[in-house]
Amino acid sequence: MSRKWLIKNGTFAVMNPEKPVINGYMLVEDNRIQYIGESLPEGTEDTDSFDGSGLLFLPGLVNTHGHAAMSLLRGYGDDLALQVWLQEKMWPMEAKFTGEDVYKGTALSVLEMLKGGTTTFLDMYDHMDQVGKVAEQSGIRAVLTRGVIGLCPPEVQTAKLQDAVSFAKQWHGAAEGRITAMMSPHAPYTCPPDYIEKIVQAAHDLDLPLHTHMSETRAEVEQNVRDYGTRPVEHLLKLGLFSRPSLVAHAVHLTDEEIAILAEHRVGVSHNPGSNLKLASGIARVVDLLKAGVTVSLGTDGPASNNNLDMLEEIRLAALIHKGVSGDPTAVPALEALKMGTEYGAKSLFLQDVGRLEAGMKADFIALNTEQAHFLPKTDFISHTVYAAGAKDVEHVWVDGRQVVKHGECLTLDEERIRFEAQQAFEGLLAR
Amino acid sequence: MSRKWLIKNGTFAVMNPEKPVINGYMLVEDNRIQYIGESLPEGTEDTDSFDGSGLLFLPGLVNTHGHAAMSLLRGYGDDLALQVWLQEKMWPMEAKFTGEDVYKGTALSVLEMLKGGTTTFLDMYDHMDQVGKVAEQSGIRAVLTRGVIGLCPPEVQTAKLQDAVSFAKQWHGAAEGRITAMMSPHAPYTCPPDYIEKIVQAAHDLDLPLHTHMSETRAEVEQNVRDYGTRPVEHLLKLGLFSRPSLVAHAVHLTDEEIAILAEHRVGVSHNPGSNLKLASGIARVVDLLKAGVTVSLGTDGPASNNNLDMLEEIRLAALIHKGVSGDPTAVPALEALKMGTEYGAKSLFLQDVGRLEAGMKADFIALNTEQAHFLPKTDFISHTVYAAGAKDVEHVWVDGRQVVKHGECLTLDEERIRFEAQQAFEGLLAR
Repeated sequence: MSRKWLIKNGTFAVMNPEKPVINGYMLVEDNRIQYIGESLPEGTEDTDSFDGSGLLFLPGLVNTHGHAAMSLLRGYGDDLALQVWLQEKMWPMEAKFTGEDVYKGTALSVLEMLKGGTTTFLDMYDHMDQVGKVAEQSGIRAVLTRGVIGLCPPEVQTAKLQDAVSFAKQWHGAAEGRITAMMSPHAPYTCPPDYIEKIVQAAHDLDLPLHTHMSETRAEVEQNVRDYGTRPVEHLLKLGLFSRPSLVAHAVHLTDEEIAILAEHRVGVSHNPGSNLKLASGIARVVDLLKAGVTVSLGTDGPASNNNLDMLEEIRLAALIHKGVSGDPTAVPALEALKMGTEYGAKSLFLQDVGRLEAGMKADFIALNTEQAHFLPKTDFISHTVYAAGAKDVEHVWVDGRQVVKHGECLTLDEERIRFEAQQAFEGLLAR
Repeated sequence: MSRKWLIKNGTFAVMNPEKPVINGYMLVEDNRIQYIGESLPEGTEDTDSFDGSGLLFLPGLVNTHGHAAMSLLRGYGDDLALQVWLQEKMWPMEAKFTGEDVYKGTALSVLEMLKGGTTTFLDMYDHMDQVGKVAEQSGIRAVLTRGVIGLCPPEVQTAKLQDAVSFAKQWHGAAEGRITAMMSPHAPYTCPPDYIEKIVQAAHDLDLPLHTHMSETRAEVEQNVRDYGTRPVEHLLKLGLFSRPSLVAHAVHLTDEEIAILAEHRVGVSHNPGSNLKLASGIARVVDLLKAGVTVSLGTDGPASNNNLDMLEEIRLAALIHKGVSGDPTAVPALEALKMGTEYGAKSLFLQDVGRLEAGMKADFIALNTEQAHFLPKTDFISHTVYAAGAKDVEHVWVDGRQVVKHGECLTLDEERIRFEAQQAFEGLLAR
């Protein structure tokens, strides 16, 4: 039996350039938006209805790069030089992570993401079955990928790749289609070229897109030139990575030629402004990427390098920092930044029918409570969302037509247990 | 009759470098912190107590630069070139502001500030009696100053200065001492030199500190050189402004020599990262200012150029952007950023006994709700506050010993009325 329901009196961010916000109605049937418009569609008078007064409806936020389980290391080492942070803080702790830790850390992050309006997240990590389990239980939409590091003996490389392949086979299309998979060499500096080629071949065989870290720091670009004689973009191009649909995370240090290659091969870029600032990686050339026609989306990166999973904050950072650094107050306008966090995010993750409030799209959407001082006056709700709102303004969240957050409470996860277990897991890691 | 009460089981950000956070007790008597420490002070067993479990107590946040009434123009023109924004959007609307508008816009801002943990704010605007009234009614601590623009005939200049002087005389020390006053030439580019000298003389006569905008944009620095043959710092030095205690807002474009002059004359700098980014003014040299010994505090600037009044966001921006731009992940560590938003803020406003959780200080403090995903694990509460928290994590707020926010609700202001009247005021401005 199909379920149809109507949102009345709502304000909807449809994000058309000529009229980005409308007041009106949205009809949802099962997991799809069936209608959205300023007038009531005919024959819907008797439909179950939901009063949207005082709420601003937006497409669900899409987080295109992260490592959710790293929430267990939030605040465990900050304000350190990158290598000290990685080698003395993150890696020794991560080496101790069990599947159970990954489950608990991911649950903590998914709880935070759902409550903050993120309806889709990409996750690249290890013990991905556990991440799949959290995605399945929580009702979130997820693009999952086992990130493989190839700095190991050939038999370990093979085992990791097999693990990535079998994870993808098992989970691609799982949870009523909410979960899709990608294949991920961790980064050019952590995977030898022949290993990257094998992963690309596996992605071809599985017909899946590829994801990788790329050009996050200047040092890794220089190392790539030293080791392979080319910068990372040309290197990955030669290895065939861009022959498949692909998304690179960070892409902070790019030349004009590299931007042209990314545009030509329709490679998406996951811009992670919070993480890039905090780890002092630099300022990505987002204005130039957008100008070149590259699809730029937004990611939080792991919670240990951010340190929250507030996508509205990433949207705001994307709108703010490129103005400040370029000296151009028209750089990355509010509407473009909001699209980076929604529509462009879904496009980057190859989700055809997600990311916009439009008839026919999946019913992934959120409602912000606009009855608050920082949403006044009622001038421009796109501006207020981008420049004034935050995770905790999210009142309701629906994914795939199902309500998962209601009045700020997550309906699908046991928050108290998750918080307790995350703290316990961290203490366990410290003690081991 | 004195009122004494005790916070038990609290976590307190005392911000000593060796131990920035302690678990323990804080005793408040009337409007002062009488004791804070890890053990229960003797003879306090019978005192009224407040359970601080699950709360992180911080000094109240101090916003050292803003124009609160401009909340009425939030979202009314964004992503525009600075001169278009000012000349076509802000100035024509501001010219229509009545005292009543200023009252309503300021009330909207003070409501947002109190709920977000700001216990002291500086305000530079016109119709300052109205701002004083809001400060008095709301219970917030305020440093108020009539900002005078001198681009007008001499008799208007004189009238404005008299207005500023009589405002300062009437309000300095008002509201049980919660309100203090400063004197403010708006900026070197909006006040002729002889007018600035007159304002400095008035500040001498009244024994009050001075506040001004300075070197916010490159263009205004260039204009200063064209008009007066010197950059703004030397210009203001010559005019005697730094002969009095003073605080300059923005200070984005500075030479090494100018930084040395500010340090030598103990001039405070109100860094406004959100506004500087949004208006594309540039990135202030905060690392160099701090290194030179300048007291750097944080301001939101007006809500039309930010666009919220979340001081935790300004603290986070201050901690993040200087890392990203300098390439140094140790630049502006979390504890330093938090001090910029509290202790250094109070010092910048010449409030001797505000800004720290310490016996003898005024009881201006806030409590964040740490029973949330983004405050886990319990690794480093300073880091969590700076890198993960936001305005809406503020659960309780006390100013001068009086609770003004309880479980996120403002006890001193009628929120619903203020929101209604702000919207009405904006519509009135549009219609006139």
